[in-house]
Amino acid sequence: MSGSVVVIYSGGMDSYTLLHSALREGHEVHALSFDYGQRHRRELACAETVCCDLGIAHEVVDIRSIQALLKGSALTDSVSVPEGHYQESNMKDTVVPNRNMVLLSLAIGHAVSVGAGAVWYGAHGGDHAIYPDCRPEFIRRMDAVAQIANYDPVHVEAPFMELSKGDILARGLAMGLDYRHTWTCYNGREQACGRCGACVERLEAFVRNGISDPLPYEERA
Amino acid sequence: MSGSVVVIYSGGMDSYTLLHSALREGHEVHALSFDYGQRHRRELACAETVCCDLGIAHEVVDIRSIQALLKGSALTDSVSVPEGHYQESNMKDTVVPNRNMVLLSLAIGHAVSVGAGAVWYGAHGGDHAIYPDCRPEFIRRMDAVAQIANYDPVHVEAPFMELSKGDILARGLAMGLDYRHTWTCYNGREQACGRCGACVERLEAFVRNGISDPLPYEERA
Repeated sequence: MSGSVVVIYSGGMDSYTLLHSALREGHEVHALSFDYGQRHRRELACAETVCCDLGIAHEVVDIRSIQALLKGSALTDSVSVPEGHYQESNMKDTVVPNRNMVLLSLAIGHAVSVGAGAVWYGAHGGDHAIYPDCRPEFIRRMDAVAQIANYDPVHVEAPFMELSKGDILARGLAMGLDYRHTWTCYNGREQACGRCGACVERLEAFVRNGISDPLPYEERA
Repeated sequence: MSGSVVVIYSGGMDSYTLLHSALREGHEVHALSFDYGQRHRRELACAETVCCDLGIAHEVVDIRSIQALLKGSALTDSVSVPEGHYQESNMKDTVVPNRNMVLLSLAIGHAVSVGAGAVWYGAHGGDHAIYPDCRPEFIRRMDAVAQIANYDPVHVEAPFMELSKGDILARGLAMGLDYRHTWTCYNGREQACGRCGACVERLEAFVRNGISDPLPYEERA
């Protein structure tokens, strides 16, 4: 099966792998990134470079003006980024209200505009059971509403839903992908911090695959 | 039943009536308007004045930066506004891709932020069967996903779903509402044009209620 798909592409390792999976399956890919004022803006720069190199359509949507609605998140506000492993207590601090429904709604609108039949999104099954809007039932219900919200139905798919972050990396490594072209750290410094929840998870995925992360780190936990 | 609700409030007559219905039912109301670069910006000015007079919380979210995704709509682009009755052939021109899912997603996020248990939205049953995202099944599916997208469930409700525009006006008139404080016309001129689909529908609702619209018009169809 091929056709046109919108891939929500943050510039991180999961969506980077997803983007390449879509290309390998023969889809025409429209990459879509969101600028929500995140500290880790390097993600967006990575996304732009990758799409340019691949020669695929890429839109960056500036959603900073809706920040008033996204208040209380460590990813945009001036509170500290939680360190260490993801746990319900600290990860709730990084939750932006209704984040994935907002992003998916915009992606579905983009799919209608460009005539794509599906939106692909990199939610995965790892240890993110903590985010309600990364769960299979959420994706199923978004898919159900996306099929009737416009004249043309759009499917919402999370092909990595059953995979862990380590599994996703394994898949990308098998495709020969180079993860230097991705950015994961929640802090916006020159090198990845190695301590925030995102870094810790990323480094563990590399350890599980028995290889070293090619990115430079300030320190490795 | 009372509690805190987010009311999507455009400044038009339907959502003006909805806002007052919520207040009459004893809800704490958080009004939410969207600036999507619409020509009929007078709607937003009406909304602001009304909320200020009522002393209720009102946020205007600037979503103009997502216009690239909303391309092709007569409401924001420089193509002409269709005149006369709403019909599938001309109303498709005013459809913004996935518009209501985007707006509802932002409203649901706002509800989570302010601790509101529901989003109220003025979709009605009149002759708008033409908009897929104004139909009962769309509202049901949005409600289903909104209940599991965040730690706190939010309900999506369209209390006027079974009413015509004339019925809504009758309800507002029975509450003693003054429709001079609303704006409906799609054109952004000093007076309502009286010819666009929105004006034609509004004027008909007044005729059905046997009274004259208090707004000044360039001409009345």
